Amino acid sequence: MTAPVRAPLMALDDALHALLSHALPLTDTESVATFDAVGRVLATDLVSALQVPPRDNSSMDGYAVRVADLPEAGTVLPVSQRIPAGHAGEPLRPGTCARIFTGAPMPEGADAVVMQEDTREVGGDFHAVHIDAIPQPGQWVRRAGEDVTRGSVVLARGVRLDEAALGLAASLGLAHLTVTRRPRVALFSTGDELVMPGEVPPEAMPPGAIYNSNRFFLRALLQRFGCEVSDLGIVPDRREATLAALKTAADHHDLILTSGGVSVGEEDHIKPAVQQLGELALWQIAMKPGKPFAYGHVRRDAGAGADVAGRCHFIGLPGNPVSSYVTFLLLVRPFLLQLQGVADPSALRLPAAMRLRADFAVPRADKRREFLRARRNAQGGVDLFPNQSSGVLTSVAWADGLVDNPAGTTIAPGDVVHFIALADLLS
Amino acid sequence: MTAPVRAPLMALDDALHALLSHALPLTDTESVATFDAVGRVLATDLVSALQVPPRDNSSMDGYAVRVADLPEAGTVLPVSQRIPAGHAGEPLRPGTCARIFTGAPMPEGADAVVMQEDTREVGGDFHAVHIDAIPQPGQWVRRAGEDVTRGSVVLARGVRLDEAALGLAASLGLAHLTVTRRPRVALFSTGDELVMPGEVPPEAMPPGAIYNSNRFFLRALLQRFGCEVSDLGIVPDRREATLAALKTAADHHDLILTSGGVSVGEEDHIKPAVQQLGELALWQIAMKPGKPFAYGHVRRDAGAGADVAGRCHFIGLPGNPVSSYVTFLLLVRPFLLQLQGVADPSALRLPAAMRLRADFAVPRADKRREFLRARRNAQGGVDLFPNQSSGVLTSVAWADGLVDNPAGTTIAPGDVVHFIALADLLS
Repeated sequence: MTAPVRAPLMALDDALHALLSHALPLTDTESVATFDAVGRVLATDLVSALQVPPRDNSSMDGYAVRVADLPEAGTVLPVSQRIPAGHAGEPLRPGTCARIFTGAPMPEGADAVVMQEDTREVGGDFHAVHIDAIPQPGQWVRRAGEDVTRGSVVLARGVRLDEAALGLAASLGLAHLTVTRRPRVALFSTGDELVMPGEVPPEAMPPGAIYNSNRFFLRALLQRFGCEVSDLGIVPDRREATLAALKTAADHHDLILTSGGVSVGEEDHIKPAVQQLGELALWQIAMKPGKPFAYGHVRRDAGAGADVAGRCHFIGLPGNPVSSYVTFLLLVRPFLLQLQGVADPSALRLPAAMRLRADFAVPRADKRREFLRARRNAQGGVDLFPNQSSGVLTSVAWADGLVDNPAGTTIAPGDVVHFIALADLLS
Repeated sequence: MTAPVRAPLMALDDALHALLSHALPLTDTESVATFDAVGRVLATDLVSALQVPPRDNSSMDGYAVRVADLPEAGTVLPVSQRIPAGHAGEPLRPGTCARIFTGAPMPEGADAVVMQEDTREVGGDFHAVHIDAIPQPGQWVRRAGEDVTRGSVVLARGVRLDEAALGLAASLGLAHLTVTRRPRVALFSTGDELVMPGEVPPEAMPPGAIYNSNRFFLRALLQRFGCEVSDLGIVPDRREATLAALKTAADHHDLILTSGGVSVGEEDHIKPAVQQLGELALWQIAMKPGKPFAYGHVRRDAGAGADVAGRCHFIGLPGNPVSSYVTFLLLVRPFLLQLQGVADPSALRLPAAMRLRADFAVPRADKRREFLRARRNAQGGVDLFPNQSSGVLTSVAWADGLVDNPAGTTIAPGDVVHFIALADLLS
């Protein structure tokens, strides 16, 4: 065992850049029901086979008219027809109006709609109406193709689908969508001190034992970002067990994600195991929480998958829960999105920070860039969680964002700080 | 049929207030695996049965020392023991240090940790080390109970669980959590003009027909906000069919959600049907998109469920896709969260807006409060989607937020506008 070397710290931006340079998008695609496509990434452009709306139609309940028939407010027009949504009307006879409903096609000859609220019935049964307003030509008319023209790219390859995108795809008649297949991720934790919740009650925990919490949020985060997760559990701190787990995982996955085992201490068996089976770069990232981080790959036995040269990505996160959580969001999230072919560069870097007022102090500067767990308050400022320990997730569970504080910077109350919303990092 | 009445417009804030006054939290609870609890709402306080960390431990790989043994940098100490994580050490002999790893319990007598990077091995095999720094007492030591004290409420009833909360619960040894049961929501759309994607190809669509897109995003949004959805499809524009659908749905659900059928046009059968089976208030909300909105209830046949007085909530959204989408996020989302017992008032109102620079113009003021579909640009400003039609979802799919523009307000480039992130509305 060689003596530890103090590696130069790496800037977070450089680490992200290096990581993304390895994230070659998966080329396998699959067809999924539009209903089930939230969070998936489009593998082809969606080109509209129709125009929306298909023809000029009313955007209000009211009366289709010819503007020329209404020189002044208060004109009375007979109602010559009735056009519900889903039905085509007759050409509009001059000097009459047509009762029309939202979404119904405009009758030929009509050039505006007067909304129902601007009319009054004359007598009963809607045989004629007072028109209380003078319409503008085109008023309350949605033009054919106004929203989507035939042949246009409505959603581009690389778009990550949210609920609105599903609705948009459906409005074009698409019941299925072609998306990148889900990345397959093998997740495991290392550490003899880890105990699974439910296996040992709190009062019976042996000295030095702690519950495995990373596995819970890492699995849920991987699922949130579109992955199919194989949870391989806790691998014992032993070389042979670690080698075996890595080999099996590499054959069937795109990424092996671990937490723990990548700091400089020689107790870790992950590092030599990955080095033996592939390659590993240990990064010391100049950020807090989250310094130790590892990226590498594990060779596959039989050049198995469709992936580059029979390799499986390896990412090793720090073992401290907060470090693990934050490095996941800042580094693994963009990695996973790029793996799925997300094209939008803004999804692959840190979300835009808001400039907000600090209602707290950080009197001692840290030599690393810090991501402080913080929360917006009702006064428009930001509060800091008092305990910024990376040991448990109380700070992250409490926070709704991270203050991105540059290295060597103190913060006084009233200073403007850069706040990154967790909602952005989780979207 | 009576002539339409022009109802006074209702402010959005008043509508939200009125809606929430009906959203009595569900009282049924269930136990779910912590692994599967993302998005669920805690029905009980989580009280810690242990302290975290359980005992003083090292937050670094390095050497546990007595500070008194290290009056100056460069002192050499023999290594008297080795304490991996998960193992208890012996009391530390004065004048020696203990090799220690992240998470390992501090040996009795030690009062600081020197990180490995500040040491150098003397000879081989780690029998002794140079300590290159003078430690502060308590340095790199995480104190017992520093993160969580025994008996404290770590997550309160009413918290909506995100990934960090799952990790926190797991760190307390909790493999299952008690949460409010999922709201059961019956979803249907009305409108003879609606066709399901996949049933008719674009080129064969009859005149006036449009694809049902609302059902796709409403179902996905309901699921995002924790609901169990029964998708009842498209109900024909006929009174008997509508009555039958409402009756059946009310018996087995907490909420019936429809889109379409709540504007002033008499083509709509939803309104009289709900009125016949319960009560209905039609609101004209002073917002754009999204004016027509209905809230009411449908009586249950046999006073079925555990819910208030045998009633099922009814919410009618506008039929225009964008109006439907936006009113869902601004009104139905908080309604659903309160139904599940979410306690945080900030989750039940509009998310905090960011003040950002408009890189666009709105030269004509609207008399209603507008929620314009917009997107943050790389220059720190906000761009507007050029077509603000509420007909299709292109604007929402493109946008990453809504500009909340007060009634009667124009916008010039350079003005500061209130921007609400969709990520916040979807979280």
